Amino acid sequence: MVRQLYPLVSADVALFSVTDDRLQVLLVRREQEPAAGLWALPGAILQPQGDADLEVTARRALREKISVEVPYLAQLRTFAGAARDPRGWSLSVLHCALLPRDQVQAVVRSSVDRVQWCDADAPGERLAFDHAQQILWARTALRQRIQDHALPLHLMPERFTLTQLQRVCEAILSPGPAQRFRLDKGAFRRRFAKSPDIVEVPGAFEHGAQRPAQLFQVAPGFRF
Amino acid sequence: MVRQLYPLVSADVALFSVTDDRLQVLLVRREQEPAAGLWALPGAILQPQGDADLEVTARRALREKISVEVPYLAQLRTFAGAARDPRGWSLSVLHCALLPRDQVQAVVRSSVDRVQWCDADAPGERLAFDHAQQILWARTALRQRIQDHALPLHLMPERFTLTQLQRVCEAILSPGPAQRFRLDKGAFRRRFAKSPDIVEVPGAFEHGAQRPAQLFQVAPGFRF
Repeated sequence: MVRQLYPLVSADVALFSVTDDRLQVLLVRREQEPAAGLWALPGAILQPQGDADLEVTARRALREKISVEVPYLAQLRTFAGAARDPRGWSLSVLHCALLPRDQVQAVVRSSVDRVQWCDADAPGERLAFDHAQQILWARTALRQRIQDHALPLHLMPERFTLTQLQRVCEAILSPGPAQRFRLDKGAFRRRFAKSPDIVEVPGAFEHGAQRPAQLFQVAPGFRF
Repeated sequence: MVRQLYPLVSADVALFSVTDDRLQVLLVRREQEPAAGLWALPGAILQPQGDADLEVTARRALREKISVEVPYLAQLRTFAGAARDPRGWSLSVLHCALLPRDQVQAVVRSSVDRVQWCDADAPGERLAFDHAQQILWARTALRQRIQDHALPLHLMPERFTLTQLQRVCEAILSPGPAQRFRLDKGAFRRRFAKSPDIVEVPGAFEHGAQRPAQLFQVAPGFRF
């Protein structure tokens, strides 16, 4: 056996979206060994010559694998050890990214045979490496963070109603496929009515079965 | 310049303790280049041949540098990039560890000339690499976690009073050296009286200037 002096370093990305009120995570089919044919999180091997830091590596993974640029990307945790990859000692820095709803379909259309959105609570059993564990970890971290931060705004299209925003928050907070988390509508609206992160789009409404609903957008000063 | 194919991987540890009601972090003086003579977090270079994972590397760092075994160690965040270490592309996986109060003095006595406990909010300016940034990050994460978890118990000696426990929580929650965070004594006692994590030591009291104070210890089933 070859004496291994350096670990393999990669950045992997759990890319989340909300479709049909369900939190979903993106998987790509691996084309090369190891784990060829299995589904995995999009990732890339660190290139010390070209990547200034690991966020650059993570964004490169999304560009190369699914041609996407995301507004929100954050490092979550590093998974490392001698046993997680058959190539040897490896280190995967897991990132979390959020994709606005109006870009979800475009990702699938671009490469439908090797990309799938799947339920974030049930990503399947045939995943490469420790990616099932990574998805569980990312799912839990996302649920914890959503309560404190303006994170859900990163999942919204450019214009949205408060009901749509509430549905996205509920999808993230739901503990699993079987149970649906319900937020109190009045309390939710009071919270976001006070929020400096979103503003009404003057005179813009969505017209559906109900009475017209005010459309909102992210406030100009909102920091992504 | 040598073409760098692999990053340098290390595990660094922010080891916290509470002394005199102040949250402190341990620094060691670097003996070798780069940054020889500067203060730094204790850390170790990953050894793929011997370390099963990064927690092993982090615990090895504490053993080698300050001869300590800690009950609580958790990964916080990975700092990485081409610019943070003069040796080239490097990656430091920051861990947080907590040292019980009765072991603090032993650490300093063992190697007083190259080890110091310093104020976690003011670790000084002459720190190696990005370690000042790492300490700030660890300090913030610790403050956030203390509110939800049983973390402060890891900082207590084997037996302690509720007043001592409250002082430790206040030290962690304090936003900086100038401001002292105060917890409501009644609410604090009600919260921990209901906690399954600590139990009274039957018939054991601390005798001081005030009336005798009941001593507590961590409950037998408490998971470190």
